[in-house]
Amino acid sequence: MSLTNGLEIPKETLDAEIQAFFDSAPPLKNRVDISEKLEEFVKKNSLPSGSGGVRKVVCVTSGGTTVPLEQRCVRYIDNFSSGYRGAASTEYFLKAGYAVIFLYRRGTCQPYCRSLPDDPLLECFEYMDESNIKVSQPHSEAVRNAITKNRAAVTGSLLLKLPFTTIFEYLQMLQMIALSMRSLGPHAMLYLAAAVSDFYVPWKSMAEHKIQSGTGPLDMRLVQVPKMLLVLRQDWAPKAFCISFKLETDSKILLEKADMALKKYKMHMVVANELSTRKEEVVVVRSNEKVSVHRNNSLGDNDVESPLIELIVERHSAYVNNSDI
Amino acid sequence: MSLTNGLEIPKETLDAEIQAFFDSAPPLKNRVDISEKLEEFVKKNSLPSGSGGVRKVVCVTSGGTTVPLEQRCVRYIDNFSSGYRGAASTEYFLKAGYAVIFLYRRGTCQPYCRSLPDDPLLECFEYMDESNIKVSQPHSEAVRNAITKNRAAVTGSLLLKLPFTTIFEYLQMLQMIALSMRSLGPHAMLYLAAAVSDFYVPWKSMAEHKIQSGTGPLDMRLVQVPKMLLVLRQDWAPKAFCISFKLETDSKILLEKADMALKKYKMHMVVANELSTRKEEVVVVRSNEKVSVHRNNSLGDNDVESPLIELIVERHSAYVNNSDI
Repeated sequence: MSLTNGLEIPKETLDAEIQAFFDSAPPLKNRVDISEKLEEFVKKNSLPSGSGGVRKVVCVTSGGTTVPLEQRCVRYIDNFSSGYRGAASTEYFLKAGYAVIFLYRRGTCQPYCRSLPDDPLLECFEYMDESNIKVSQPHSEAVRNAITKNRAAVTGSLLLKLPFTTIFEYLQMLQMIALSMRSLGPHAMLYLAAAVSDFYVPWKSMAEHKIQSGTGPLDMRLVQVPKMLLVLRQDWAPKAFCISFKLETDSKILLEKADMALKKYKMHMVVANELSTRKEEVVVVRSNEKVSVHRNNSLGDNDVESPLIELIVERHSAYVNNSDI
Repeated sequence: MSLTNGLEIPKETLDAEIQAFFDSAPPLKNRVDISEKLEEFVKKNSLPSGSGGVRKVVCVTSGGTTVPLEQRCVRYIDNFSSGYRGAASTEYFLKAGYAVIFLYRRGTCQPYCRSLPDDPLLECFEYMDESNIKVSQPHSEAVRNAITKNRAAVTGSLLLKLPFTTIFEYLQMLQMIALSMRSLGPHAMLYLAAAVSDFYVPWKSMAEHKIQSGTGPLDMRLVQVPKMLLVLRQDWAPKAFCISFKLETDSKILLEKADMALKKYKMHMVVANELSTRKEEVVVVRSNEKVSVHRNNSLGDNDVESPLIELIVERHSAYVNNSDI
């Protein structure tokens, strides 16, 4: 993320850039279907929850976005992300009583499936006879968990899964979700764990056909994706509790950049994590505090996401109580 | 693929380029394990098969390779490929009595799983009780097929699955496989359906840390991956029956490029397919024939791979019979 643009460019310019990005993006194929699902999900979760209070709703974004290099896409640039963080966080948000909109990259890690092998069907099952399928040890516990907990969350309208692949799909869907969550006011949270491309090739300037390798090297020019965080925060869902993530491979610049993002995009919280240690430790950066959160190996839930979500839920509750509704 | 290089550059230069590529590539982590599996698999399938004759062995490559843009990989360039063709072809080769080394991109389509939803575990199963898992209709047939047929092929040493992700892993593994198949002479086949990157960033010139987006556009220079097909054909497995694939989005240049590849790389066969129609029709290009193969919707096996593999098996048998062993 840039240190020198963002707030420094006038809001009008940013708005124009964002409008241009959306105008040039290929239109979302299933837009109507998505908006119907969103409307229904938000409506169901706007009613008082079991505890009598209003249920909190979080949108968890997960996995990396792709940037097509050709319109009939053969090649694209991808951002690495297994989606483990988003899947784990979704489980802990559900456990904490939240309803979750899980905006995830197709094929990445799903909630309740983190402990399963890559290819559960072929690796966890044995076929007995016409009427019987047996889960092979040692997977039976994990398989039962995955099937039952996922089923319960989805059928209970507490988990809405929306898949994306490209940066164009991701940003259009994120905007739809943020707008649909406005009615929830401060009870809405945006937990932006997805690894979003900083650069893209504008759709109209993209090669229609597969790029030919020719004889020489391939020179590519990618332009910056306009920074949507500020607009998301100020215009799309101004009352929502917003958390963004900062991933770096170089720990020396990590906290500085997290601070920068917090100020530039007016986030309520930035979760700073370093690629090599991200499953052990993250640092929660806020205007008034920096809290280092560690995975606790002595507990059952030994994911760093367990104490992380606990801390976030606490801060979100305080935020809801402090905001005049 | 280029129309102007390949054969035109001297073999010595090509060999040097390839050596440089391998020297600069990050070493394969599980090389010992892979070579042990390969040795055992080839040995088992070198013995006379059920029919008394020697079993034929094919290496099917499947899915796209990635090109890392950073050493601690956050971003990479990917080649689009679902792996459907490779998975389907593997099923038909097994059906035809071949032993298959399935060199596939992690996360792509697996043999016998083509008709299943993206996430079979969460979409095909219902949990009944402690001891019972039920496959929900209409998936039961497909699930039984996947589990039983995969299990049978793997336990019978007729299917060896080897996953890759990067272009570095793919080419190192392909070389190991080709060399291990030499002992099979003309009974070996290389069926190169994977979508291999034409360009890469040499490991040593790669940024160690995540590329910072800075202020301006991102300019990238990628260099060509040395064309390994000719060396594979002439040096790695000179007696193997070699089939490469040509995918284009522009049908106007497709056959011309397939012909070019056939001559340049001395392939026995090039399968030409166009992105938009590749599941309906392919053209088999040989020095003395061009056969257009269509999917037959009136049959049960209504995949274009069914008649395609039938044709290939026929041509391979003729090749084996004509070669003096």
